[in-house]
Amino acid sequence: MPEKVELEVPLMLAPVPVVLVASAHEEFGQNVLTIAWCGVDCSDPPTIHVSIRPSRHSHRMIKESEVFTVNFPTSDLLRAVDFCGTVSGSLGDKFGPAGLTPVAAKEVKAPLIAECPVNIECIVRDIIPLGLHDMFLGEIVASHADKAVVKEGWVDFSKIPLISFVNGEYWSIGEKIGDFGCVVEKT
Amino acid sequence: MPEKVELEVPLMLAPVPVVLVASAHEEFGQNVLTIAWCGVDCSDPPTIHVSIRPSRHSHRMIKESEVFTVNFPTSDLLRAVDFCGTVSGSLGDKFGPAGLTPVAAKEVKAPLIAECPVNIECIVRDIIPLGLHDMFLGEIVASHADKAVVKEGWVDFSKIPLISFVNGEYWSIGEKIGDFGCVVEKT
Repeated sequence: MPEKVELEVPLMLAPVPVVLVASAHEEFGQNVLTIAWCGVDCSDPPTIHVSIRPSRHSHRMIKESEVFTVNFPTSDLLRAVDFCGTVSGSLGDKFGPAGLTPVAAKEVKAPLIAECPVNIECIVRDIIPLGLHDMFLGEIVASHADKAVVKEGWVDFSKIPLISFVNGEYWSIGEKIGDFGCVVEKT
Repeated sequence: MPEKVELEVPLMLAPVPVVLVASAHEEFGQNVLTIAWCGVDCSDPPTIHVSIRPSRHSHRMIKESEVFTVNFPTSDLLRAVDFCGTVSGSLGDKFGPAGLTPVAAKEVKAPLIAECPVNIECIVRDIIPLGLHDMFLGEIVASHADKAVVKEGWVDFSKIPLISFVNGEYWSIGEKIGDFGCVVEKT
């Protein structure tokens, strides 16, 4: 067995997707926040979450509007990603300075981000306070992708260099290495 | 703006980490299950989740034992990953057939998996029923990594070819492309 060492700081999983979370609010307008604390929670109803600190401007906007969108930035948007994760929307519009374009979604009032090749619309089903972060559980009510990256009705992830995050580092995603069920099919 | 198309099936995020979830139960012994529905939920207390269908053998084991471990397989373990995600532990031991070795954890009764270079110990803080899946919220109480992949007290992810999952496909992770705060530091 390989020698194991205990880490002093808790390890927050492995590289996880980096997403741009967009929101809209009657009083505050539109906002965008970079989030890595997200994940899949349930297949049916299709549910994902984003975790946000109560002190963040987006927290109040999403809590009160009860909708958000999840948009997947590509590596050419790394500057925008870092900007939207470190500067508060309470200081003013972030879309313009980040070079991002909000466009109307189909089912929710929060905008999609045009420059992101994949966009998911969510309705907040629950907000679970956990400590430093509150978890916003969102049911997916619509998913979109750039026509150029859709193949046979599905997203061809080999065409979009997405970004992941671990321990303060941004990472690229790699290549397809297999299909679910490949062992069972073979044996 | 690029032309967008709506997807007929909800998009469950982008490639997300694939983990081996290990459990232990007084009556049923030890078990291991492959999970991709996981994510980071809160930084403090450090909280991650795994979502499991109530019909899975691991569901009852973790619900009753209130602990689990999250272990990160590398691409050379793809056969074990696929096997442990498609075959039920109720049919018998999966560790042996999968070529995986359970070893004692530090804080919880669920085992670590020796072949996985990174291991996280969790205590169940809540179970949230969402529909097809129940979300097990786990507080991280200890993290371990193979000594060979630890650099300055932290995991060097460039040394471990982890696996992610999207839409029935296994993917590799890529390369580091930047640091959090790189924009703010420069501007």
